[in-house]
Parts: sequence; structure tokens; C-alpha cells
Amino acid sequence: MLALHSYFRSSASYRVRIALNLKGLPYTYVPVHLLKDGGQQHTDEYQRVNPAKLVPTLVDDGHAIGQSLAIMEYLDETHPEPALLPRDPLGRARVRALAQSVACEIHPLNNLRVLQYLDNDLGVDEDAKAAWYQHWITLGFTAIEFKLANEPATGQFCHGNTPSLADCCLIPQVANSRRFNTPLDAFPTIKRIEQACLELDAFICAAPKFQPDSV
Amino acid sequence: MLALHSYFRSSASYRVRIALNLKGLPYTYVPVHLLKDGGQQHTDEYQRVNPAKLVPTLVDDGHAIGQSLAIMEYLDETHPEPALLPRDPLGRARVRALAQSVACEIHPLNNLRVLQYLDNDLGVDEDAKAAWYQHWITLGFTAIEFKLANEPATGQFCHGNTPSLADCCLIPQVANSRRFNTPLDAFPTIKRIEQACLELDAFICAAPKFQPDSV
Repeated sequence: MLALHSYFRSSASYRVRIALNLKGLPYTYVPVHLLKDGGQQHTDEYQRVNPAKLVPTLVDDGHAIGQSLAIMEYLDETHPEPALLPRDPLGRARVRALAQSVACEIHPLNNLRVLQYLDNDLGVDEDAKAAWYQHWITLGFTAIEFKLANEPATGQFCHGNTPSLADCCLIPQVANSRRFNTPLDAFPTIKRIEQACLELDAFICAAPKFQPDSV
Repeated sequence: MLALHSYFRSSASYRVRIALNLKGLPYTYVPVHLLKDGGQQHTDEYQRVNPAKLVPTLVDDGHAIGQSLAIMEYLDETHPEPALLPRDPLGRARVRALAQSVACEIHPLNNLRVLQYLDNDLGVDEDAKAAWYQHWITLGFTAIEFKLANEPATGQFCHGNTPSLADCCLIPQVANSRRFNTPLDAFPTIKRIEQACLELDAFICAAPKFQPDSV
């Protein structure tokens, strides 16, 4: 049995929820509220699950796995259909690089603990914080848009006509961008792919607002 | 023929150099100086190789691949021996999660363009910048040390007794930590693994000081 320790707003959790849904895997949702009680990720109980105090954590039959990209690769290896990576090494590299363009270049700079550090330790005001947030999204999306718009491997989705790890990472990042009012006019291909994804139940049902801890 | 577009000090480039060496793959070193000429990653020529303007990029027979983790997975798929990932899905997930604990949690916050933003856009002084740098390393290494020290899968290296993707990511991050005088006393397992790695030519020869652009 699979359990996902998740926070509804965490975009790394959101990625894994999409992947689980795409594979049609049922799982127990275990909420970890990153703001309530001073952050439930800091409890002793959660640290036993994930010493990094980060969400998400997937628990498969007692084995805890952290890091959203590692979790999605694990799901793809243990439940190969439908595949979230293409079969050819170059295609796999392209999908992973796109996923990592979100997961290593944009998201780490904009997650909750970084914004808290800017606020509490560096005394950065709200406007400068918003500018920081939008800066990393715009920089990252510019590179992703260029690839998606110019490479023939792009299809209805980031890679071909079925969703992949890249889409699992992209859509939560687009959702975050909208939440923080980042202009997306310069990214028509990203917006087109978002639309295609949001026609699928797997993406729709993974959205923050439909999670049990969103209320 | 393989070519690696690399900057000697880039720890993401350093990871891939280790992986190439571990696999015994010869490659052409193409230097991209991130500071000279206003940053050679911004030239039109380099943007045609990597529109994200980031190093490293691996070019395999005309095909450009970005993102160090994607590159190392590609190398592992196209040149399987020696393997940089274990065979079992849980072991693979553990190695990937450790690698991503560096590549998604520590390094993105401390790379050159982020330090430049803190400096130029937020007016953060040198002391506060050093504190920022050390904060993310200490936080990340605390989680990694806990896993490495407590999980039986840890061996001479991060996972068992052969180097993996996790070691390829860890060693460059330790090198950066030393460069910025981050105290490492609280991380004895990380230091022990570093020592084991630095007995291997693959790690030694990948170090920044031995790259052609280090002079």
C-alpha cells in the first residue's frame, strides 16, 4: 500500500500526486501542514519519516522515499505503465532535463523556507520578495519555452503526445506562477501544454484545492 | 564523440566530469567561463548549445543534453558499466534522492547567479551572503548526514561500496563548502565518504584545479 505525505500547496507534492494519478495508483493521503503548529514537518514523528523535514515522502510498504523526482522515477520503475519517460535515452534525457529545469532551477528558489529566510533573516520587503519570485520563474520559463517551442520532440505535451515527468513538474510550477501573478504572456507553448494537461483528470484531481488538507 | 561544455568551478559540471571519469569515457573539454566577457554562457554561440545559458552541457554526436542529473542518467543508460545506480528500485530511489538533496536543495541556492542577485538586486552585504551560503549547506548536509549515518545501505560510499550518482553530487558540494569555509565538524560520515572518493583518480582528476580553464 502506498502513502503520500503531502502538503496541498507544495508543488513538489503536487508533482507526485499527478504521477500517482496518471498511473492509476491508489494511495493514502497523509497531510503535513507546513505552516500549522509551527510547521508539522518539524515534528519528531515526521522526522522519522523524512529527516530532511521536506514534503513529499512516499511510503511504499514501510519504505520511505523522499525527493519528488526520485519518487516519480521509482513509480515509473515499479509500475511501468503508462510510462512517464520515453524509451530512448535521448528522449529520456530531454524529459529529465525539462523536469529538472523546474525542479533544480526555479522551484528551489521559491519554496516556503527560502521565502521565510528572505523575510526573517534578510529583511526583504514584500515587493522585493515578489520580484525575486517572479525573476526565477521568468528566467526558468524563458529557457523552457524556448526548448518547447523549437524542438520537434514537443507534442501535445512537453514530449510527444502523452504526459511525462516533465509535465508533472511543469503544471505545478505554472500553478504557482499564476498564484503569484507572474505574467505568462511570453510563454505560449507552456500555456498550451498546461491547457492540454488540465483536460486530464489526473492533473485536475491533483490540484491543491482538491486535497483533503486544503480546507 | 562526447564534448562537455564546462566551467572549472561549476559544481554541476564537476559532477558530470566525475561520472565521465568513473565510466572511463574520453571527452573534449569545452570551457565556458561564467565570469569572463560578462559571462560566456550568455553568448549567442553558447545559447545555441544550451538555451538555458547554464553549464554543463553534454554534446553526444551532435545532440545537446543539459542538466547534470539528466546527463549522468543518460551516461548510465548509454554506457552501463560501471553502474552509477544500483539495480533495485528502492536503492535507485535512495541514490537519486541523495543526489537530489544536493542538486535540488543546496546547490540551486548557492550558485553564481543567485549570489549575484543577492548582491546586485537585494544589496545583501558580504557577511549576510556568507551566512546565506552556509545556512543552506548546513541545513542540507544535516539531513544528508543523518541518512548516511543511520541507514544500513551506506557503505564505503553513499550507497554500498562503489561510487554512485550520489557521490558524484556530494563531493563537489563538499568542495564548495570548504571553499566558503563552512564548518563540517557535524558531518563525519560525509567527510569519511569524501576521503574514500578522493582516493580515486576519477574524483581527483575532475577537481576544478585540474581543468584546462582553471588557469
